[in-house]
Order: sequence, then C-alpha cells, then structure tokens
Amino acid sequence: MTTDVGIIMGSQSDWPTMRGAAEILDELGVSYEARIVSAHRTPDRLWSYGKEAADRGLKAIIAGAGGAAHLPGMMASKTRIPVIGVPVETRALKGVDSLYSIVQMPRGFPVATMAIGAAGAANAGLMAAQILALSDADLAARLDDWRAALSASIPEVPSDD
Amino acid sequence: MTTDVGIIMGSQSDWPTMRGAAEILDELGVSYEARIVSAHRTPDRLWSYGKEAADRGLKAIIAGAGGAAHLPGMMASKTRIPVIGVPVETRALKGVDSLYSIVQMPRGFPVATMAIGAAGAANAGLMAAQILALSDADLAARLDDWRAALSASIPEVPSDD
Amino acid sequence: MTTDVGIIMGSQSDWPTMRGAAEILDELGVSYEARIVSAHRTPDRLWSYGKEAADRGLKAIIAGAGGAAHLPGMMASKTRIPVIGVPVETRALKGVDSLYSIVQMPRGFPVATMAIGAAGAANAGLMAAQILALSDADLAARLDDWRAALSASIPEVPSDD
Amino acid sequence: MTTDVGIIMGSQSDWPTMRGAAEILDELGVSYEARIVSAHRTPDRLWSYGKEAADRGLKAIIAGAGGAAHLPGMMASKTRIPVIGVPVETRALKGVDSLYSIVQMPRGFPVATMAIGAAGAANAGLMAAQILALSDADLAARLDDWRAALSASIPEVPSDD
Amino acid sequence: MTTDVGIIMGSQSDWPTMRGAAEILDELGVSYEARIVSAHRTPDRLWSYGKEAADRGLKAIIAGAGGAAHLPGMMASKTRIPVIGVPVETRALKGVDSLYSIVQMPRGFPVATMAIGAAGAANAGLMAAQILALSDADLAARLDDWRAALSASIPEVPSDD
Amino acid sequence: MTTDVGIIMGSQSDWPTMRGAAEILDELGVSYEARIVSAHRTPDRLWSYGKEAADRGLKAIIAGAGGAAHLPGMMASKTRIPVIGVPVETRALKGVDSLYSIVQMPRGFPVATMAIGAAGAANAGLMAAQILALSDADLAARLDDWRAALSASIPEVPSDD
Amino acid sequence: MTTDVGIIMGSQSDWPTMRGAAEILDELGVSYEARIVSAHRTPDRLWSYGKEAADRGLKAIIAGAGGAAHLPGMMASKTRIPVIGVPVETRALKGVDSLYSIVQMPRGFPVATMAIGAAGAANAGLMAAQILALSDADLAARLDDWRAALSASIPEVPSDD
Amino acid sequence: MTTDVGIIMGSQSDWPTMRGAAEILDELGVSYEARIVSAHRTPDRLWSYGKEAADRGLKAIIAGAGGAAHLPGMMASKTRIPVIGVPVETRALKGVDSLYSIVQMPRGFPVATMAIGAAGAANAGLMAAQILALSDADLAARLDDWRAALSASIPEVPSDD
Repeated sequence: MTTDVGIIMGSQSDWPTMRGAAEILDELGVSYEARIVSAHRTPDRLWSYGKEAADRGLKAIIAGAGGAAHLPGMMASKTRIPVIGVPVETRALKGVDSLYSIVQMPRGFPVATMAIGAAGAANAGLMAAQILALSDADLAARLDDWRAALSASIPEVPSDD
Repeated sequence: MTTDVGIIMGSQSDWPTMRGAAEILDELGVSYEARIVSAHRTPDRLWSYGKEAADRGLKAIIAGAGGAAHLPGMMASKTRIPVIGVPVETRALKGVDSLYSIVQMPRGFPVATMAIGAAGAANAGLMAAQILALSDADLAARLDDWRAALSASIPEVPSDD
Repeated sequence: MTTDVGIIMGSQSDWPTMRGAAEILDELGVSYEARIVSAHRTPDRLWSYGKEAADRGLKAIIAGAGGAAHLPGMMASKTRIPVIGVPVETRALKGVDSLYSIVQMPRGFPVATMAIGAAGAANAGLMAAQILALSDADLAARLDDWRAALSASIPEVPSDD
Repeated sequence: MTTDVGIIMGSQSDWPTMRGAAEILDELGVSYEARIVSAHRTPDRLWSYGKEAADRGLKAIIAGAGGAAHLPGMMASKTRIPVIGVPVETRALKGVDSLYSIVQMPRGFPVATMAIGAAGAANAGLMAAQILALSDADLAARLDDWRAALSASIPEVPSDD
Repeated sequence: MTTDVGIIMGSQSDWPTMRGAAEILDELGVSYEARIVSAHRTPDRLWSYGKEAADRGLKAIIAGAGGAAHLPGMMASKTRIPVIGVPVETRALKGVDSLYSIVQMPRGFPVATMAIGAAGAANAGLMAAQILALSDADLAARLDDWRAALSASIPEVPSDD
Repeated sequence: MTTDVGIIMGSQSDWPTMRGAAEILDELGVSYEARIVSAHRTPDRLWSYGKEAADRGLKAIIAGAGGAAHLPGMMASKTRIPVIGVPVETRALKGVDSLYSIVQMPRGFPVATMAIGAAGAANAGLMAAQILALSDADLAARLDDWRAALSASIPEVPSDD
Repeated sequence: MTTDVGIIMGSQSDWPTMRGAAEILDELGVSYEARIVSAHRTPDRLWSYGKEAADRGLKAIIAGAGGAAHLPGMMASKTRIPVIGVPVETRALKGVDSLYSIVQMPRGFPVATMAIGAAGAANAGLMAAQILALSDADLAARLDDWRAALSASIPEVPSDD
Repeated sequence: MTTDVGIIMGSQSDWPTMRGAAEILDELGVSYEARIVSAHRTPDRLWSYGKEAADRGLKAIIAGAGGAAHLPGMMASKTRIPVIGVPVETRALKGVDSLYSIVQMPRGFPVATMAIGAAGAANAGLMAAQILALSDADLAARLDDWRAALSASIPEVPSDD
C-alpha cells in the first residue's frame, strides 16, 4: 500500500512545528511519512525525493522550512504533485522571511502556502486531506465530521476560568 | 458535464489579475467558471456558492481578493473543497494587507495561498490543475508537457535585445 | 430591557484581551453581552447574529479577532449597526496581520478599528460608550467624569518607586 | 438647524482624499461641514473646535491626516464626540505612518480608524451615517437602501471590457 | 536660576526609559526638570508647558512617548525651543509606531528624533547638552571629556568573561 | 564672519532633496555652506570636515544621505556640534533603509533625525535655525514670524479648485 | 584560459539589473560569463553548473534573482566557490522578498548578499574583483585606481544644473 | 606568519554573536584575530585598521554590528580587502535596522552581508574560508570535508526525543 502524504522539513528543529501536520493526518486516518530533507544540506535527497514522488504514489507533499526557506519551492520545481508550504517561525524576523521565501514563487511553480507556525502546520495536514478527499468519499465524510466537531466545540459565551 | 474549477473574486477590478488563472486553465484544458463573489457586498452569494460547491462537483476554488481580503478564508469555512487564495496587489500596502488577510488563517480552515498579483493568479491555475491531475492521467501528461515546455523555453545566455 | 453593546470574539483565547472592553462598559454602566462568534468555525452564528443585531436593539458591536481576522469585517457586512474592531496580538506577526485584516475594509463596509491589544479593547468600550452617549445625557456625563478622572490621575512629576 | 458631522483635515492637500467622505454624506442626506484644522499649524483652531464640538451639536467628527498624523488623536482628547480617523496616503511610507499614528491610541481616547486613502474616507462617511442612524430611522432606511443598491450593483460574471 | 532642559513624557510608564536622559544630564552637570505631560490625557498641561517654555528659559525639551506618540510633535507646534523626541518601545509594534508618529512631522515643525528606547533616551540627553554647549564652553569641555572617556573605555580585544 | 550651518550630503543626487534645507535657511537669513561629503567615497573629507567643524564656528551640521546612510552618524562621531540627519528617499525601500541607518544610533552619538525626504530637509533647516535662535534674539523673532505666517496661511475651508 | 566569474540569473528579465555586474567586470578587466540558470525552471542546469564550478576554475559566482529568490542559496549549497547574491527588485514587495530569500541562509551555506537592485549588481562585480585581487596584484592595482577615480569624481559643492 | 582574517565588532556586546565566526575558523584551521573597532566610539581605530589591512596581509574582514550598523560599510570604504558583514540582532527592530544599514551600500563599496544573528556569524566564517580556499587547496579540502560532514549529519527521519 502506498503512502499518501510526504511531510518533509529542512531540519530536526522544524519537527515541533511540523508534527502538527502529522497529528491532523493521524486524526483523519491519512497515511504519511515524515522525512528531513534539507534543500541546502542534502540537495541530492531533495532531488531524488522530488523525482520519485509521483511514481511512489504520493498525492501531496507538505514542506516546512524557516529563514531562506527554499525547500518547498525547490520541491515544487521537481514534481507536479501539489506542494503545501509551511513557513516556520524564525528568531529575528518571526517567519516573515520564511513566508516571503515560500509564497512569492514565480509563474510555473506554485506552493500552497499556509500560515506561519503551528496553525500553518495543522492546516497543511487539513489541506492535504481536503485534496485527497476529492477522490475518497470516506475521507470526505471524516473531514466533514472533523469540521462539524470543531464548530460544535465553540462555546457561545467566553469563560473566565 | 460538471465544471471543475471555480474562479471567484471580490470585484470586477480583480479580473485583470485573476484572468491569469483562467488563461492557464484554458491552456491546460481544464473547465472553469469565473464569478464575482464579494464577501462583504454579496455575502449571501458567498454562502450559497460555498454550500453548493461540493455537490456541484467543483474540485477547487480559486479566490482572489485585495485589502482586507476575506473572500478566500470565508469560502474555506463554507466548503471542504480546496480553496486557493490569490492576494491582489493594493495601492497603499502593495498587497501585503491582502497576503496577511489570506494566509494567516486559523487552525481548521486552510487557504492555499499564492504569490501577490499576476504570478500568483497564474500559479493558482496551475495548483488547481496539479490537484485535478492526481486523478486525471491525461491532465497530468499535459501538465508535464507544459512544465517541460516552460523549462525548454529558457535560453542559456541572456539577450541584450 | 435591551442590551446595548455586543462584544464578540473569534475564540475563547481572545477573551483575556476583550475583557478590557467589558470592564470599561461595566465602569460606565453600559449593558452588554459577550459572545464567541467565530467567522470561520461558526459562520452561521455570525450570520444570524448580524441579521438580528438591529432588531434586537444593539447599538454597537465590538468585535475582536487575531490573524486573518475576518470577524469584524464580515459582521460589518451583515448589519448597519456600527462595528468596532479590535486587532488581537498574534504570536508571529504581533497583530499586524490582525490590524491589516480589520482596518483595510473596502468602500461600503467600515470597521471602526482600534489599537492592537489591550489598549484597543478598552478603547472599543469607550468608543461604544461615546456613540451611546450621543443620545444618553446621563452616560455622557459619566463619560465626562471618567475622562476628567483619568486626566486628574496623572501626576506632574514621574516617580522613581 | 445644527450640522451633524464635521469633516476636518490637516491640510488642503488632504481634500482630494477627504472629499470622498463628503460625497457619501451628500448621497445619504447627512449635513456636514468641511474644515482645515492642522494639529501643528493651527493648534488653537483644533483646541476650540474640539471644545465646542458637543455644544454645537456635532455627532461625529471625521479627521483625515497623513504622516505624523496627530489631528484625529488630539481631537479625540478634546471631545467625547466620536472621532473617525482617515489615514491619508503618504509619499515614502504609503500611509503606514499615518495609520500607526492614528490607530495606536492609548487607553482613554479611541479613534475609529478607517482604511488608508480613498476607501477609508468613503467609509468614514458611512460610519458617521451608521452612528447617526441609530437615532434616525429615516437615515437608517436610506443606509439600508444604499447598502442594498451596492450589493445589487455587483454583476455575477466578470466582464472583459 | 533657570532650568535648561525639560524632560517630559506621556506617562509614568515611560520614566524607566526616559530616566536615561536625566542620568546623562546629571553626569554632564546640566540642569533639568522631569514632568509627565500627556498629549491626550492632559492636553492643557501640554499647551501651557509649550507656551511658557521660551519665557521660562528652557533651551531644549526632551519628549518621550509610545504608540500614537503625539507629545513631541504637539510640543514642537507650541514652541520654537528645540524638541528632541524619544520613541518609547511598545509591546506589539516594538516602537515602530512611536518612531513613525514622532519622526514623520510635516514641514514647519521638526522633532529631533532619537533611536527607539534606552539608547535614544540617553542620546536625547547628549543632544540637549550638545545644543547647550554651543554657548557654554565649560559644558563643551565636559562633553569632550565624556566622549573621550567613552572612546577610551573600549577594549581592543573582546573578552570571553 | 563665520558660516553657521553646514549642509552636507552623500552625493549630488541628494541635492534636489537637501536644497529644501538651504531654502529655509535663506528665508530665515541664516548663513550656510553646501558640500558633498560622501562617507564611503570621500571618507577623508568627512574626517577633516568633522574635526574642523567646531573650530570653524559651525553651530549645526545638516547631513542628508540615502540607503546605508552612514554620513550623519559618522559625522556625529567626529564632532560635538549637533548633527541633524535627513533620510533621503530610496528607490526600493523608500527611505526606510535611510531612516533606520540614521536614527538607530548607539548611546553616545545622537543624530537629530528628521522625516524622510523633502519635508525632512526643510525641517532640518528649521531645526538648525531653532538651535541658533537660542542665542540670537533677532533670528528667534524671524522664526516666530515665519511660524505665525505659516499658521496664518491655512484657510479654514478646503477649496475645490 | 579559464573564466573567472560566472554571472547567473533566474530569468532574462533580471538581465537589465545584472548587466551592471558585467559592466564593472569589463571595466576592471575580469573575465566572466553570463548565463540564465533558473532554480525552478532549469534545476538540472543549476545542479550541473554548481557541480562543475570549482573544476572549471570559476572563482566567484554572482547570482541574481527576485521574489522567492532561491538561485543564490541553492547554488551556494552545490559549490564551495563564493556565491554573491543580488536581490532583484520586485513589483509588489520591492525586493524585500528577494532580500530575505537570499540573505537569511542557514548555517553552512553563506551567500554574500548585496543591496537590492542596480547598486547591488554593480557591487557584486566589485566584490568578485576584490576576491580575485587577493591573488592578482595587477587587478588589485586596477581596483585601487578604480576606487581612487570614484573618490576623485565627487565634486565638493553640489551643482544646481 | 600573517593572520588571514580579522573579526571586528562594534562592541563587547556583539561578541556572543560574533564568536560563532571565530569558532568556524578554528574548526577549519584558519588564522584570525578578534578586535573591537567601534565606528562611532573609536573611528580612528577603524581608520587605521582599514588602512593597514592589505599591508598586514589580511585576506578578509568579518565585521559585525547592530542598529545603525556603520562599521562594515565604513571598513569597506577604507580597504579593498573583502568585508563580510554580520547584522547583529537588536532589541526593538530585531536586526532589520542592522541588516538595512549593512546591506544597502551604494555603488562602489560592497559589503558581503550575512543573515541576522548567530547563523550569519557562522556563515561569515565560512565565507571567509571559502574565499581563502580559492588559493589554498588544503583549506578547500577541509571545507569540502566540513560540508560533507554537515550533510552526513542530517538524519532521514525526524526524532521525537
């Protein structure tokens, strides 16, 4: 059986952020793998991961990186599988550098960019699931339930506790 | 036969930007419709568009807006169909307002955000096609050709003319 | 007897900020209700809240939200009751995302935007009271007293303690 | 008969922007006056305008200024009448300086801040009308009509012409 | 004997920053007074302080404020005595709001703006002393000594301790 | 007779901006010289200009520069004469680079920073005059007249012409 | 004979900017080649260019790109030859996106980043020459002359023509 | 024997950042010296350091500074030896001020700018080594090993520990 989603990140230090994507995929029953693929430190790994993605049956690649965040965009240049980018928060520039490096891709190579940090990682998992749900009615139903549960969890009145 | 992609935008003035998405979909032979759906001026239109999207068979919604750009995010809250957001350039803030309003979505409702302006609109069309190509081998082949042609068009040496 | 002011917010986590608006209204003797109304997670709640606001006799709606902060602007599109927006501070972008998402509304749907964070929430309460005071001489007098007391509380010389 | 709204601005050069507020008030049949009141060049004019605002029966003051835009905030310190601020676009900083100088008011003195530039000026007129409509059913009806007409004017399909 | 420098600030909370100006003036033997003068909460205090500044013999006014920092600019409109502005650091915008509100003054009313925060406050004291030293040879000599001592205090090699 | 004010700038291209300082000084009858002193291209010129400034009797130095604008700060390190900095607008960063490079001086070496561009240059001339007026009653009177004329020139009502 | 410097750029549209690097190298008599190497459209060209750079005898690579500017950083990951990055100005974000994408490289892979736009391109040529001059006394002398001529070309007094 | 690299910084407080450059040079066996050279507090030290750099046999100068960071650019104006700039993180502006002050150099005087903070300091050491390796085959081999070891140290799968 194939894995549906690849979660890749530039370094071990991105995992606390990117784990949020894995957790959502776990909740929704979507298969995934998590890999460290550094655009700069392991470019050949990036190359082969991108080249093999379609043949391996991946349906979405979630790529997180911070600073001069080249991983999502370089992966988008190596495969036509949808790449979802997560700008990881950085110390000095707070992830604005990551965001600009990921979202401002030139014509030809889109990266589906998410919010900076943890919310973005979780949403990357959801976006991957939404893409997969287009051809998986069971997953679509689980997504609808997940969204309904999220809405139902919101109290009407704020609590002081 | 159903339409695959909905291109929506907040106002007529976004069309010169968003037309770039339509042109890519034309090139790739993907069916689409273009609609003006203003989050603020026609909220009920947004509501019904979002509610009916899945049943109508839409597989991706490309939403462009500028300034306090609420259309992509509000659409993402109304449907599980993937929403691709295009930040339209604005006069004073150059689209940074559009970008932040689109990309910084809270956990639960991802918007696949593209670059500001024309490159982002074209890439929105490509991202929609990449999603559709996951279950359409012909489209996948056309996309591969499109990408190969883009690469082949790049000269090796810059020209002074 | 009707409630004069609705304080709404996108999530429970906004309440520590938005409570500042409630406290000012308490001090000034203005009736209010506090509700969680998420633009993305409970859009139908937003819809009905906005539709009923005028008929219920609300005279101002204070709406706080962070990130892609769509609540104030969407509420402004659903009711002609004045909407006062409070940009809640965010982790990475410090509330600049919230501010741009709230203040940069298109022609037709103003949101009376306040400062980022706690000062903005308190001022939202004051702005609501200033609006109500236009037709409530007693409240106007209480506001004048509140402002005079604030001015009188400022020492002339800074203290080292 | 009293004038309901004061439109003030820091200099003649702000009038092309601020005229948009006047036009909306004309459309809605709201009485107003337009005055140049410079916080720095005519501080005494600012002082007396603010002191007399309530007694003259003004119900809202729309204040536009650019750069180190002190007019709206200083006016808010001189009167409890609601002050609506319009950040005028500037050459180098594009109105971000105006926006920060107007919106970041300290606790005690809210300015209802609008978008940068022309959309903000028009919305300032609408916000003033929304405030007045709280105690003027005829104006409320005209506002509802204005909003309905705006919504009705949005075509469903973008036009290439 | 007259006081040479007025150190004013918008609130008690600015004193930990502004004390740095007082300390420099103490070191250099320049007479000063420290006062809280809030542009918004005590506008009349600002008015009278500004009007009397020249007659009282003040030779420079150091004004610190944060956020929509109107104190330095409003003081500059009330007196021809040089006003030195200190942007106090703020929570969300880190003092960029203060900086823009102070430095972007329109033609006619300069504020001599210093760096954000503590370095700016100390430098405001130095700038006041540099101005006074133009007509006080003793102070000029003390300033030269202060500057020479600062230079002499810099070690040639960084220390690991 | 000595010259009172030195206007220096990093390059000929700064003169259209800096001329505004000269024009104000002409209007106020203050003597000045204009010189090109490039921090990077003519560092020795900067060195000697700074070293001789006090002995030559200069009472203020107005320094304009753009981009990595080191001229004002380096001049401030070479002389205790007050240095007034003018951030010249730049093509890409609009003078934010110039502003940060000039205003963010470390403790010890203040630069009295003005607004970006033309308003800042004019205000630099005024600030120099305000400093000189502390010991020149005639100039003080001319400054008072200049300021009074500026205030008197402001019409009460904006003109549509 | 080997070529000393490679000037590479992401697209033909970068050439009007990057030509400035070529012109400086021409002036200084340094051999170079100009190539279009797109990180995203021709990643394999980037790969082989980087792999062969050292063996071909290149001593510096000047890389210009705009937006999500991945070319300089990816080249730096493929070769130990010094890479000099030029952020090309962009339409919406004015090259801030290019700058952040180039300069914020992670530990291990430096890019010697220059100013945004034309000045940066010229300086990239100079930096390459400065590096080569370390082991080329003739070039060092030509550089010294070039710098001396630049300094000598600066007039002392600005011209009104 | 000569020292190859000079590491200079504006103050002792920059050493915790700049030490990262020294550590890399230690790892790679490159000789260096570390000096405090303040552009503003010890301008004469800067002057003589720059003037003697080439004659002393320095082959690269690493210069770190924060805020109005003039040290790297001023050093670049005094010597043709390559200057590598490190923007030190600052309290309020997080090093954006340092970055702009260092990178936005005018035509003629390049500074090879690195990332803000610790990563930038380490990379400055690497860039110096890369420059030296052009004429030192042993160092080139050590650099290749260092880079290979860095790549080899990246695990394939992120660890939860």
